[in-house]
Amino acid sequence: MKKIVVTEDVFDEKDRAEIREAAEALGYQVVFSDGKPVDDLSEAEIIYGGFGGLFQDIPLNNLKWIHSSTAGVDPFLKDGVLPEGCLLSNSSGAYGVAVAEHGFTLMMMLLRHMPEYMERVKARVWSHDLSSRSLYGSRITVLGTGDIGRNFAQRAKAFQPASITGVNRSGSLRQDQRSGPPLFDRVIRVSELDTVLPETDILFMALPGTKETEKLMDAEKLSLLPQSAILVNVGRGSTIDQPALCSALNNGVIAAAGLDVFEKEPIPEGDPAWEAKNLLITTHCAGWMLLDYTRKRNIQIFLENLVRYDKGEKLVHEVNRAAGY
Amino acid sequence: MKKIVVTEDVFDEKDRAEIREAAEALGYQVVFSDGKPVDDLSEAEIIYGGFGGLFQDIPLNNLKWIHSSTAGVDPFLKDGVLPEGCLLSNSSGAYGVAVAEHGFTLMMMLLRHMPEYMERVKARVWSHDLSSRSLYGSRITVLGTGDIGRNFAQRAKAFQPASITGVNRSGSLRQDQRSGPPLFDRVIRVSELDTVLPETDILFMALPGTKETEKLMDAEKLSLLPQSAILVNVGRGSTIDQPALCSALNNGVIAAAGLDVFEKEPIPEGDPAWEAKNLLITTHCAGWMLLDYTRKRNIQIFLENLVRYDKGEKLVHEVNRAAGY
Repeated sequence: MKKIVVTEDVFDEKDRAEIREAAEALGYQVVFSDGKPVDDLSEAEIIYGGFGGLFQDIPLNNLKWIHSSTAGVDPFLKDGVLPEGCLLSNSSGAYGVAVAEHGFTLMMMLLRHMPEYMERVKARVWSHDLSSRSLYGSRITVLGTGDIGRNFAQRAKAFQPASITGVNRSGSLRQDQRSGPPLFDRVIRVSELDTVLPETDILFMALPGTKETEKLMDAEKLSLLPQSAILVNVGRGSTIDQPALCSALNNGVIAAAGLDVFEKEPIPEGDPAWEAKNLLITTHCAGWMLLDYTRKRNIQIFLENLVRYDKGEKLVHEVNRAAGY
Repeated sequence: MKKIVVTEDVFDEKDRAEIREAAEALGYQVVFSDGKPVDDLSEAEIIYGGFGGLFQDIPLNNLKWIHSSTAGVDPFLKDGVLPEGCLLSNSSGAYGVAVAEHGFTLMMMLLRHMPEYMERVKARVWSHDLSSRSLYGSRITVLGTGDIGRNFAQRAKAFQPASITGVNRSGSLRQDQRSGPPLFDRVIRVSELDTVLPETDILFMALPGTKETEKLMDAEKLSLLPQSAILVNVGRGSTIDQPALCSALNNGVIAAAGLDVFEKEPIPEGDPAWEAKNLLITTHCAGWMLLDYTRKRNIQIFLENLVRYDKGEKLVHEVNRAAGY
């Protein structure tokens, strides 16, 4: 019998029953490894889970497809991790809502000086003299127009910003990303980024971690932003030169930043990020699978893909291993 | 010459020039008192400012109209404050955007356990096990369908909640509140509130402070909410029985609350609010006039009203002194 090993360990009994039932109906046996190095892995034709659930000392000789339960798949793409010819798909569609909401929260907190007000309230200081700003009328630049970036733009639009500019490789949205009312006032190529940075009040970053995006926001690009700019990153930590950002914050080059992702996670002891001025840190908790919606959507994407895989059809969210997302 | 005294003290030189120019064009003299008890007050036909800028030991014999620079006018409505027959209008239209954004921020912070995560990060604890929730799919009840409540609903809608229920006195929106796409899935009367509370994930409160709204959310009504419910109040502190709310929070009757307004402000030393569990406090800073947009909109509303007053037309945002808003 064809075997699926589910290495992801967050699923509850109801989730497991749903996966098992759907897979068995297609003739697959399902084993839940709960992140342990079970022997079944070497017999698996399909693995469904994050990179954390894989173990490189078990040969994956029968593996034909890994469906990652995460959106980012950069760890899978390192040399020698995936068997030759193995299909790889991700769950990017499952995280857009949760990660966009999280990034939205970080942005609003910074616009309204929440970290400072919370410190003051804790010290029982009653004041309201910090010059809070509105999303209303702000110029927003969204770096990355994938699932997260588009979900963010759709929400931000309701706050009546002055403009929302999308930035991606091609300078346009794919056909399948264009349904509904337009999300962006314009979409430009990442090669044109320098032209829009000086007119950006809020830079919202939701890029995948690839060779092309590595340290995209470096000291030079950060210096093109207005001093009042706010930067939020909920994509991959590798897309920012993190020491350069800390230095930009400490020197007032930009006003504030909210980061859920970092070059190294957890942030190492002694890292300048811990002490950087006006840096709001969260612990890569934006898209955590504990969120009901995220978990259910994740399962849904996998099961839809399983039907496609079984019929030999093209997978959705299949990762272009050259592009890296 | 007819005299306007501007008691509000937040205006900068540009703001003052704008007010002066427009008023003088209509034949009014403008005096800026900067919150001081100037003699001009007794000669004023019109006062433009908040209650803090008025002084009761100066007789306001010539006063015909006060345009409050605040949205809430409860202090003006106490006996003996306003001269007989004096018109009163408020600036409610100026604060909707800012206050809705602030309340939105409090709500998102609570949904995503931001206060706890920030405490953990401060202690350098790297974890992501708190079960964050989404606005997506949530059932929202908006108590008060005025400027703030409607601005909030418009923004919340973009997050695809399960439902948005508006609650007000009449159970319907006024004609002038109905432009654009519908903001609420339904609007019910405040007398029907008990029926909707058990099906409320998020209770967003933006009510004026009147006799009718006083302690509207009391222990009994709070107990009708689900244990997972989140309450946000950016209207008036008087609309909640605050000790009852603190007790509901401490006993897990509801999950969390975010308040920008309180029964007494600043919150007195020793008040249980300071120590209540899962209570996020801000210092009535939601609609502060330091926000550029709020200040400009405030001036705009006053100047438009001045034209109406001068022509003997009905004022906009005129306060119904019996209803209290």
